[in-house]
Amino acid sequence: MQARWCDEPIDYDGSQLRAHWLLQRFGVTGDAIAAFRGRCDVRTDEVADLADLDGPGIRADEMLHFVWESFADADLLLATHRQRLLAAQVREVVQQFAPTVEVARTGDDLYVGAGKLSISIATVTPVSALIHFAVNVRPGGAPVSIASLEQLGVDVEPFARAVLDRVVDEQRSIVEARAKVRPKGEWR
Amino acid sequence: MQARWCDEPIDYDGSQLRAHWLLQRFGVTGDAIAAFRGRCDVRTDEVADLADLDGPGIRADEMLHFVWESFADADLLLATHRQRLLAAQVREVVQQFAPTVEVARTGDDLYVGAGKLSISIATVTPVSALIHFAVNVRPGGAPVSIASLEQLGVDVEPFARAVLDRVVDEQRSIVEARAKVRPKGEWR
Amino acid sequence: MQARWCDEPIDYDGSQLRAHWLLQRFGVTGDAIAAFRGRCDVRTDEVADLADLDGPGIRADEMLHFVWESFADADLLLATHRQRLLAAQVREVVQQFAPTVEVARTGDDLYVGAGKLSISIATVTPVSALIHFAVNVRPGGAPVSIASLEQLGVDVEPFARAVLDRVVDEQRSIVEARAKVRPKGEWR
Amino acid sequence: MQARWCDEPIDYDGSQLRAHWLLQRFGVTGDAIAAFRGRCDVRTDEVADLADLDGPGIRADEMLHFVWESFADADLLLATHRQRLLAAQVREVVQQFAPTVEVARTGDDLYVGAGKLSISIATVTPVSALIHFAVNVRPGGAPVSIASLEQLGVDVEPFARAVLDRVVDEQRSIVEARAKVRPKGEWR
Amino acid sequence: MQARWCDEPIDYDGSQLRAHWLLQRFGVTGDAIAAFRGRCDVRTDEVADLADLDGPGIRADEMLHFVWESFADADLLLATHRQRLLAAQVREVVQQFAPTVEVARTGDDLYVGAGKLSISIATVTPVSALIHFAVNVRPGGAPVSIASLEQLGVDVEPFARAVLDRVVDEQRSIVEARAKVRPKGEWR
Amino acid sequence: MQARWCDEPIDYDGSQLRAHWLLQRFGVTGDAIAAFRGRCDVRTDEVADLADLDGPGIRADEMLHFVWESFADADLLLATHRQRLLAAQVREVVQQFAPTVEVARTGDDLYVGAGKLSISIATVTPVSALIHFAVNVRPGGAPVSIASLEQLGVDVEPFARAVLDRVVDEQRSIVEARAKVRPKGEWR
Repeated sequence: MQARWCDEPIDYDGSQLRAHWLLQRFGVTGDAIAAFRGRCDVRTDEVADLADLDGPGIRADEMLHFVWESFADADLLLATHRQRLLAAQVREVVQQFAPTVEVARTGDDLYVGAGKLSISIATVTPVSALIHFAVNVRPGGAPVSIASLEQLGVDVEPFARAVLDRVVDEQRSIVEARAKVRPKGEWR
Repeated sequence: MQARWCDEPIDYDGSQLRAHWLLQRFGVTGDAIAAFRGRCDVRTDEVADLADLDGPGIRADEMLHFVWESFADADLLLATHRQRLLAAQVREVVQQFAPTVEVARTGDDLYVGAGKLSISIATVTPVSALIHFAVNVRPGGAPVSIASLEQLGVDVEPFARAVLDRVVDEQRSIVEARAKVRPKGEWR
Repeated sequence: MQARWCDEPIDYDGSQLRAHWLLQRFGVTGDAIAAFRGRCDVRTDEVADLADLDGPGIRADEMLHFVWESFADADLLLATHRQRLLAAQVREVVQQFAPTVEVARTGDDLYVGAGKLSISIATVTPVSALIHFAVNVRPGGAPVSIASLEQLGVDVEPFARAVLDRVVDEQRSIVEARAKVRPKGEWR
Repeated sequence: MQARWCDEPIDYDGSQLRAHWLLQRFGVTGDAIAAFRGRCDVRTDEVADLADLDGPGIRADEMLHFVWESFADADLLLATHRQRLLAAQVREVVQQFAPTVEVARTGDDLYVGAGKLSISIATVTPVSALIHFAVNVRPGGAPVSIASLEQLGVDVEPFARAVLDRVVDEQRSIVEARAKVRPKGEWR
Repeated sequence: MQARWCDEPIDYDGSQLRAHWLLQRFGVTGDAIAAFRGRCDVRTDEVADLADLDGPGIRADEMLHFVWESFADADLLLATHRQRLLAAQVREVVQQFAPTVEVARTGDDLYVGAGKLSISIATVTPVSALIHFAVNVRPGGAPVSIASLEQLGVDVEPFARAVLDRVVDEQRSIVEARAKVRPKGEWR
Repeated sequence: MQARWCDEPIDYDGSQLRAHWLLQRFGVTGDAIAAFRGRCDVRTDEVADLADLDGPGIRADEMLHFVWESFADADLLLATHRQRLLAAQVREVVQQFAPTVEVARTGDDLYVGAGKLSISIATVTPVSALIHFAVNVRPGGAPVSIASLEQLGVDVEPFARAVLDRVVDEQRSIVEARAKVRPKGEWR
């Protein structure tokens, strides 16, 4: 699994959450996660979560985006577990960077007090699983009350790199753990 | 998915991590998680993690044990993701019960300072996936430096029930999230 | 798995057999089956069975429709087995409601004498498996010789509810059976 | 998928429900179903259904046994659906051979009045799925009230051959149906 | 698995590599492979390999095409292994027909010296896996340096029939091998 | 995927073809292939291929052994395809090292004239897939007529390293190919 930090801002409209976007945008082949900064304004036809379809919209002036594509493990149930674990990982990194802040995880959402810090979705294509996870960089542009990395005093790039490292390390350790375990038999 | 709190102590020697133990011990059919208190002393032939096979042993005088069996999703990679998410969930519940304590997650292990708070393994049987996760209740009996719920001032039963609720709720929300998402197409 | 009886008629043109139609029409999240009455006239672009594509059309003036979507088990081979079992279940319920009638099952089709009582298809979406099963309510409108519930003296709603109960009960018992069985080894 | 009728009686003690028994007993390679007559007396260590483990025993003086092994589709959930469909198929064949008899299906069990006509289990090995389905040939030897083919006036061999044909035909038609269906998209 | 040799030329533009094309063109239901001669000129929107999307084009005046669709085993990783094995099989048949020629396999490509003898892709549909493998019949029309059966002195139809036989035989032997093997346990 | 050449001879009795042997013998975690020289004498209880169970035995004085374990892709059908591809790869490497020798592949076996050059099996454990492939190093000790690397004038270690490289390279290219392909739709 490869990771890419992209310095150049990319505005996210949901079409980036498609099969092979990472390959064609960053030239990475295979399972990968990329991080970049950019506006968020998801086009209705690109909304993956049906719960959002008639909602207030998915928008913010500046977010830190993570896009993860996996070809090796393309099952949606697994992707949803990975997405929840990613939310927990991001929360852990926030706690490292801003130890005095209380950040809560509710499913795939992170909150600081009443402010929503992040958005996320996990879905599938015919050849892969995809996860989008984005954290507000600064206030503004969102249809709901938000918290942002700026408010928490967290620098974007080091934070992004820490999350990328955390994800890659834990995926490696998960794959290794799977290869070290003996099966079990019947109780009786 | 069902959850059971068992008031009666059960000594854990690893043989409880077998297919259908929950069914035969608690009468629950299907995917379930149970929690109980008890000594921990894993027999060598019941050690699932090969990394532990030649180690100092898996022992503690009193632990809070969680045993989770899933028949619906018996894949080991998924089980390992669930186990990591469970570790994150337990950490979150510890933070709720002991807000001033710093607890860190390293893979499937929780630490308070240098003290190991928990042990865990995920494995499979021919018909199911199994997860064992156990948190030290009080000091004593372990071959390594440990932290315990007693030291953190956390009451065992309410804590156990909070973890069970968290797991059941999040599994329900994961299953619901999977059923609400539109697939995605090609970038180009 | 949830079940819904819908009192309001819905004309079926095949577009109801799409991912998340049950969610958006009935508000049910996850694996579910719904039953409703309505005309049947499947649009060519919604025909799933290629064997029907150049046939006489799939039409009837009034049918009792069952639409079943499963996210948990989205494999087409399993869906086809479920569909056959559903045909057998419907036949069993017809026999309960009309004990003197001889109803025969040929694959996923039910017949009373030379009259075709039902139509059915099982297919997949990128996120789920789908089954449509429909029973003629009264004569008329079909391009082939048909039998109907009216001719058999069977009331639609009680019959529909009995089928829904049968399906939900048997799925529950299948899931329980899977969780109660010991694996087997080699003969030699 | 191949089918074998075996004229020679074979006493069934549960050890026949093991991987590759059909291969080694009948020389058939791959997915297959065999039928034979014989006593039934399942050894405790060969009981697959945990619900039977502390029951009255699984015995009868003479049964018609079907043993089905599948390597191509070794998932337990699918096997359980196949088993239920097999129960429905056997019921249908009984109705053909004894049209005046009322035979009811409850899950994987067939009843004639209060008499249990059949026993069944579906399970897995590390390389295959296995189904045992057996119908009482004559009264006697069972720990519960039973019905038998003899009482229904049904000849064993023609009945067995009809079931084998039904199973092989329907599996062929299921595989063909899977290969003729177009997938479906999103409702919205 | 069925095989078809089609005497009539068919121009290949990539749209033949779609779900159910074999069914609708040749009337074969289920897993099948067909072979035919014809021009090759793949339309950009039918290019499956993203590595080819901005390349010189996929063209040749006359090729021997193989199109293989599998509904039973629709996983892309398996399909890619089958495709590599197919390349090895075709190489073996070339060696039989032209024993003095040195033909090399690089992944899914065959070369004679610097001349590319073949093209290939493996992909999936929502209901199946698809493989296209094509061998140049004569020089001309290709955007790269090619080798052809004509240059090797190989007759097209007997060669095609030999490849079809090889594929069908080896798939049969693979399925049989799977059904004859005992599982293995732990080292320790 | 990792590869290991082991200089020290290891006698192969079939017990090396077990889950986690590579981990415990060579310290490699995860998908891996190892090669080593050693006697071959497979114990009856370690014979995986039932076709060999009553045969003349699996023995040779000195063979070059390859043992491959995969946790990521543990399906037996895939493993059998990998094994066939491995046989083709080994044949290709033999052709490179001994260009004038005619070596034929029949399924998973390689022959030089009437002499059997290799043996092989693919099987599964509850947590992985396993492949054993072995090539005779010198004549002697086999119950059938054999060919050997010595007779072909092929040096063992360079040959072994070439095979390991070939396998690792092709697996990498298969994984990359899977991640570069667009899915396909319906013909009609």
